[in-house]
Amino acid sequence: MNKKATTEYKVLNVISERWSPRSFREDEIPVEKIRSLFEASRWSSSAFNDQPWRYIVGIKGSSSWNNILDCLVEGNRDWAQRSPLLLLVCAETLSPQTGKHNAYAAFDTGQSLAFISLQATELGLYTHPMAGFHKDKAINAFQLPSSVEPLVILAVGYKNTPDILPENLKNIEESERKRKPFSEFVFTDKFNKASEIF
Amino acid sequence: MNKKATTEYKVLNVISERWSPRSFREDEIPVEKIRSLFEASRWSSSAFNDQPWRYIVGIKGSSSWNNILDCLVEGNRDWAQRSPLLLLVCAETLSPQTGKHNAYAAFDTGQSLAFISLQATELGLYTHPMAGFHKDKAINAFQLPSSVEPLVILAVGYKNTPDILPENLKNIEESERKRKPFSEFVFTDKFNKASEIF
Repeated sequence: MNKKATTEYKVLNVISERWSPRSFREDEIPVEKIRSLFEASRWSSSAFNDQPWRYIVGIKGSSSWNNILDCLVEGNRDWAQRSPLLLLVCAETLSPQTGKHNAYAAFDTGQSLAFISLQATELGLYTHPMAGFHKDKAINAFQLPSSVEPLVILAVGYKNTPDILPENLKNIEESERKRKPFSEFVFTDKFNKASEIF
Repeated sequence: MNKKATTEYKVLNVISERWSPRSFREDEIPVEKIRSLFEASRWSSSAFNDQPWRYIVGIKGSSSWNNILDCLVEGNRDWAQRSPLLLLVCAETLSPQTGKHNAYAAFDTGQSLAFISLQATELGLYTHPMAGFHKDKAINAFQLPSSVEPLVILAVGYKNTPDILPENLKNIEESERKRKPFSEFVFTDKFNKASEIF
């Protein structure tokens, strides 16, 4: 099984090697590695340096971990329960500088999470962001203020063999990673006109 | 001037060395490097692998570059006009799989842009995302469909000396990079309760 991205042009190893598995080992993650993930998360850019990302951290064995797991839809809970680290990833949509709505809260939180995913890869860890969870449950469980939007739950851990997964997920786990051709997302002059650089 | 992030825990060099300058050299960027930026951009994760990121690429001397520059507010245009590469970063908010609104369009486009910023750092380039531009102008200039949201304009280029900037921007360029302490964004049990891992 080779999940490394098939790239036409050279990219950072951590970029080509990052992917989102469902088969995790249950091994604990050393706290030093967890600290590095959050260190990475705070150095991304944000509009007006608002830093809208907020993380609820759940380490297996804690009530936070139990509560985050409990927010997941069943299909995700089945495999994510082997992950030793679960994060509830939220965005503060109120700008502390202007007191107004921050239209870049989700966008900038995405940037922060991307830094976590690449730092994790550097540390031999894998991450899997999930949109499939009950937001109302997360809001209640962690007493999120009304200005804070829960965005994804991130599973983090070491990779395991695909063989522990049910057949349908095992097939996804072993399939090649696919991305759109450049002509479908890099444009020039006007939308949908493919750039001539490729 | 040392803009490298002051980190308490170890992170990737590309993460600690990335920052958003305003002083760019006018030197052209080899097309091979530009291709690597977009290669990096497509390997981030996205909800349902929708890949909602869309880029309009403007290389200095082209009408796309002129049109992107023209969308910027004056304060950004003043310094961004030295950048040899401008990108209009957009999100497709309509999911091709469901035909419905993709609530993760901006979040996932943020992830994609973060990959560009780190790939740029690896190639000796710097990036500066700007929220300050006229969205209606961008929509008109590039005939964006109604489902496509223009999010930021990204300036890309090689770094120049801060001395070419006006005094107020020179001061920002030379100031230390600042981020929130962990206690303000990494929580456990409930929102705003600092995690005990730091």
